[in-house]
Amino acid sequence: MLTVLAGGVGAAKFVDGLSAVVPPEEITVIANTGDDASFHGLHISPDMDTIIYTLAGIIDRERGWGVAGDTFECLNALRMLGEDAWFQLGDRDLAMHLRRTRRLHEGATLSEVTREICDSFHIRSRVIPMTDALAPTLIRTAEGTLPFQEYFVKLQQRLEVLEIDLSAARASRPAPGVLEAIRDSDAVILAPSNPFISIGPILAIPGVGEALRAASAIAAVTPIVGGKALKGPADRMLKSLGFEPSAGAMAKLYRDFLDLFVLDRKDEYLKPSIERSGVRVLVTDTIMNSAASKQNLARSVVEALQRRWERGHHART
Amino acid sequence: MLTVLAGGVGAAKFVDGLSAVVPPEEITVIANTGDDASFHGLHISPDMDTIIYTLAGIIDRERGWGVAGDTFECLNALRMLGEDAWFQLGDRDLAMHLRRTRRLHEGATLSEVTREICDSFHIRSRVIPMTDALAPTLIRTAEGTLPFQEYFVKLQQRLEVLEIDLSAARASRPAPGVLEAIRDSDAVILAPSNPFISIGPILAIPGVGEALRAASAIAAVTPIVGGKALKGPADRMLKSLGFEPSAGAMAKLYRDFLDLFVLDRKDEYLKPSIERSGVRVLVTDTIMNSAASKQNLARSVVEALQRRWERGHHART
Repeated sequence: MLTVLAGGVGAAKFVDGLSAVVPPEEITVIANTGDDASFHGLHISPDMDTIIYTLAGIIDRERGWGVAGDTFECLNALRMLGEDAWFQLGDRDLAMHLRRTRRLHEGATLSEVTREICDSFHIRSRVIPMTDALAPTLIRTAEGTLPFQEYFVKLQQRLEVLEIDLSAARASRPAPGVLEAIRDSDAVILAPSNPFISIGPILAIPGVGEALRAASAIAAVTPIVGGKALKGPADRMLKSLGFEPSAGAMAKLYRDFLDLFVLDRKDEYLKPSIERSGVRVLVTDTIMNSAASKQNLARSVVEALQRRWERGHHART
Repeated sequence: MLTVLAGGVGAAKFVDGLSAVVPPEEITVIANTGDDASFHGLHISPDMDTIIYTLAGIIDRERGWGVAGDTFECLNALRMLGEDAWFQLGDRDLAMHLRRTRRLHEGATLSEVTREICDSFHIRSRVIPMTDALAPTLIRTAEGTLPFQEYFVKLQQRLEVLEIDLSAARASRPAPGVLEAIRDSDAVILAPSNPFISIGPILAIPGVGEALRAASAIAAVTPIVGGKALKGPADRMLKSLGFEPSAGAMAKLYRDFLDLFVLDRKDEYLKPSIERSGVRVLVTDTIMNSAASKQNLARSVVEALQRRWERGHHART
């Protein structure tokens, strides 16, 4: 059993590759919901949506979000009605949000709705939100504190980030199954996601830190290659939050609980310094731009974890 | 000032013609909301939607409902998610329902949301729901009592109607402005709409009957021509509820408060019997299949009402 802590696009690609390498039923994805927001009265879970559409095989690969080939007639009509329409919502995409919102109004929890939606899409892996509560990540900038999607989508991440406010996540409870999935799996993998706004909120959920300390093995795949985030503002955030924008800084962020850090070949020169901090390093190709590269990355990570288990087993006998 | 009691398609066409004959600002439309229903968590007001889309000039004239040229991507996606999708909702159409539902959740009344939506569409006439409460019309059939849309859309009006249950309308209060619009206008016009399921619910709202008795003049345009409903099940309902399926039966239904009944030329032979019941009759073309025919009908009705006012004035002086 493998548990993946996941943000959006990078995580979804990684899990997609992983599902081809291990049986999908053996994967649990714990998804960040700090980015969740309400638009037009609908509950949107951007990271979970990206994971679900990816695992359902209908993700728009060009954009990285939403349903492939989707249209935007409703959004255009909302704009004509004078509604705020900067958050892109496709017509087919809306079906998921309508279903989720209706079920939440009926009293279902976010985990329950997520399971129902995954079942409708015949998704065999388990996808769990980090919490069933609303736990919005707030972004403090020089121009004030913003809800995540305003910073991320509306203002296109233009403002410098001074602080990530995860107090809502810290005050919430893990969704059912979250702590068990971390504690009881053969390994926990931190997907190549933004450490502050994707993985950070999950780590901030009460009990998750303790569960990680009880986990068999923990690996993290770098979302930074050659000093640049593969997607999104992780590199700029590292800088503005006082870190070096590098995979090395990433490894340092996680070193308290990390067994294995997965570094891109381009950054191989960082291996010795990371290993000096006590974290084993796997060097491989981490850029996932094809089905093959996704699966190769997943296979390398799984094999490195297996070697670790074998060694662990040997050491104990 | 003219006030129109309105169902959906026929009423919308009539008001459309009327707006070309009198200044739109002088028209108040009181719309049936007995057909309102919730689909996918959205509040749908089919009759108001039809009136609004018609007055906004974007109605789909072929179908008679929804937005011209609309697509159904979201509905198809809902169907794939296993949702009930027999109620047709176009992608652009959804924008209106999202807006309405969000505002209702925020605590706005249906009248307030309706005014906002009309403003967004630059509609100059006033459209008021008959009530701000939920007042669902129920249809009793041999196979049980059904919510209106199940009878009307899902089962395509196949079941014989034994009774129209308007108890929810009877237990509700008129929306702000409804009674004033009826009492204070120069004339009230019952649009060519189904007497049982479109006009009936409005008449069932407490206070409406009394306001009608205080009205200056009341006209009704027949929705039955040559013994057939121009649209929908009015003829079959007349029969199954024990009436003759004719314009004459229509006039009889309303005769207690009616000053003028507008009869189609095809039914001119009914004029003497209707007039014997004390209702004046205007014979004209009532079939509205073009802008010209809509305006001609509206003009004939307005002129007949004006002649009545002049005579009334003459009688009093």
